[in-house]
Amino acid sequence: MAKTLIFGHKSPDTDTICSALVYADLKKELGTDAEPMRLGPVNKETQYALDHFGVEAPAYMEKVDKDVDDVILVDHNEFQQSVDNINDVRISEVIDHHRISNFETKEPLYFRVEPVGCTATILNKMHKENGVVVSRKNAGLLLSAIMSDSLLLQSPTCTQVDVDAAHELADIAGVDLETYGLEMLKAGADVSDKSAHD
Amino acid sequence: MAKTLIFGHKSPDTDTICSALVYADLKKELGTDAEPMRLGPVNKETQYALDHFGVEAPAYMEKVDKDVDDVILVDHNEFQQSVDNINDVRISEVIDHHRISNFETKEPLYFRVEPVGCTATILNKMHKENGVVVSRKNAGLLLSAIMSDSLLLQSPTCTQVDVDAAHELADIAGVDLETYGLEMLKAGADVSDKSAHD
Ligand SMILES: [Mn+2]
Ligand SMILES: [Mn+2]
Ligand SMILES: [Mn+2]
Ligand SMILES: [Mn+2]
Repeated sequence: MAKTLIFGHKSPDTDTICSALVYADLKKELGTDAEPMRLGPVNKETQYALDHFGVEAPAYMEKVDKDVDDVILVDHNEFQQSVDNINDVRISEVIDHHRISNFETKEPLYFRVEPVGCTATILNKMHKENGVVVSRKNAGLLLSAIMSDSLLLQSPTCTQVDVDAAHELADIAGVDLETYGLEMLKAGADVSDKSAHD
Repeated sequence: MAKTLIFGHKSPDTDTICSALVYADLKKELGTDAEPMRLGPVNKETQYALDHFGVEAPAYMEKVDKDVDDVILVDHNEFQQSVDNINDVRISEVIDHHRISNFETKEPLYFRVEPVGCTATILNKMHKENGVVVSRKNAGLLLSAIMSDSLLLQSPTCTQVDVDAAHELADIAGVDLETYGLEMLKAGADVSDKSAHD
């Protein structure tokens, strides 16, 4: 088990899963032994993104093991959205874009919340700040997160920073932003499980 | 009255006062009409720093006026350390280095807490990120804040980032770091008010 675990919220969405995966890679690049985890099942939209870019989902975790040194929260900060034993672990970082509520630590930490539409947008910025190039796969994951959270760049929470990041990342990932985003959202809206009975 | 007010905690220390002053200048440089404020009296140590670099203290404020658009908190995040009517105002940003507790917003914001020894250290970094050169006066204020919070770079909360920032800023401010820092701390420890009666 890695010393540092990175995970997003319960009922994971594409931003939560992809941000955990990509941030773990960035941390490793910067010398921290970090492992991405998830707190629930991968939904169909996210699975489409993972399959498209050939990436494995993070491992599922019910609670944080005792031998873990610290955890990093992405895409959430409210404790009730986090792992059940969040009160027993040391949180070293939070990277998020939501309002802040029900969050508390005993010690200082690196806490970065920005008013943008997606955690992936902040991670794209953090690669630049650290002079790390985003790989093709990771660009695909970050793009997927942005297209998901922003509903194809249309949601009211979507900012110009998200739009710019999405275009940059689509170039690196080698996909057409509109076409890929729409296919991904459609995969998530797929009701074939249900339709057999309807 | 400016649209955006920037202030630190009650019982202001040197980091709280200097960070409010310097961040207001940076925000203005970046196009936001921001005004530094303070929630209590300027202590002797801080006054020494302000006098040394020829800077006026921020204006005193008991509570935030109704015509203020939003506020930026520096050097604190806990509501009980902030202005009395903090629950009635929109917080657009927090720049701090303390643990997070008793903080909550309805909306997303820019919330930046880093595990360093001083808010001024983060502000020094933010100047670089935005390509803004720190003026001589502002370098003096940021240096004063770091020397104060870190007790001349000796406190356990002081990190290498703080030490590096202090040396950089002392160069710009044109002072000897040790000599200046010691004089400033001595000014703060001055007990002449009391000694007349002892
Ligand atoms: Mn999410
Ligand atoms: Mn998100
Ligand atoms: Mn302080
Ligand atoms: Mn401080």
